[in-house]
Amino acid sequence: MVYKEVKEPIDEGWGHVVSEVVLDETLADGLDGLEAFSHVLVLYWMHRAAEAEPVRMRRRPQGRADMPEVGIFAQRARHRPNPIGVTAVRLLRREKNRLMVQGLDAINGTPVVDVKPYVPQFDSVEAPTTPTWVNQLMERYF
Amino acid sequence: MVYKEVKEPIDEGWGHVVSEVVLDETLADGLDGLEAFSHVLVLYWMHRAAEAEPVRMRRRPQGRADMPEVGIFAQRARHRPNPIGVTAVRLLRREKNRLMVQGLDAINGTPVVDVKPYVPQFDSVEAPTTPTWVNQLMERYF
Repeated sequence: MVYKEVKEPIDEGWGHVVSEVVLDETLADGLDGLEAFSHVLVLYWMHRAAEAEPVRMRRRPQGRADMPEVGIFAQRARHRPNPIGVTAVRLLRREKNRLMVQGLDAINGTPVVDVKPYVPQFDSVEAPTTPTWVNQLMERYF
Repeated sequence: MVYKEVKEPIDEGWGHVVSEVVLDETLADGLDGLEAFSHVLVLYWMHRAAEAEPVRMRRRPQGRADMPEVGIFAQRARHRPNPIGVTAVRLLRREKNRLMVQGLDAINGTPVVDVKPYVPQFDSVEAPTTPTWVNQLMERYF
């Protein structure tokens, strides 16, 4: 579960948001050694999107008129067939079954489905390229 | 679903493996525009791990004696509470509901739960650090 001050989905300014990720106490030992990593991937279930209207296969990112209409798998929108989010965040601190992380774009109460160490060999790619609308969209997001 | 020649889990040499990721035909439009990205994240359900013995909270990565015993959330092992894998892969080609990708470390027949564009603002981090055992482990993986 994610605990934080952000209660509603927002479309910008996540970069400095600090969240607490709290796992079930029975899973606490599973976090042993994670503190040796600077960053982690948090996988979470975007429960509010899951309860919303049916998923459209194509849409404009953030519903913005200045964005092209693209497929749901070509964007990071929440309203997707399986509303699982993945974000790479900085790990600030671990205490038993609790993690303090920075930059997680998930609202308060979001169920966490997995935590993984950020491993460059899996998660970093060389010279990724994206269409220009992505930079426009991301300008204020983090 | 992932289609490829690799039928059994392996612990090394995934880097040049080319896979076909095939979504349900009803989802084909959802891939529109994805071809403008050089890389994608593939999220998949590690079904063979899901059917295996109960998850241990701590283990040695790949069962190797030269690895430290660390928590399951401090490693990318398949036998985790929610066996969802995430890998950043190169997108070679898209054709309707089919993607050709390179470097996906999932075996033939693996169910795919989501495809996302690789967006550096979400997925790349600055100067990630990992414990030294990770580099030892990854030496031959990709």
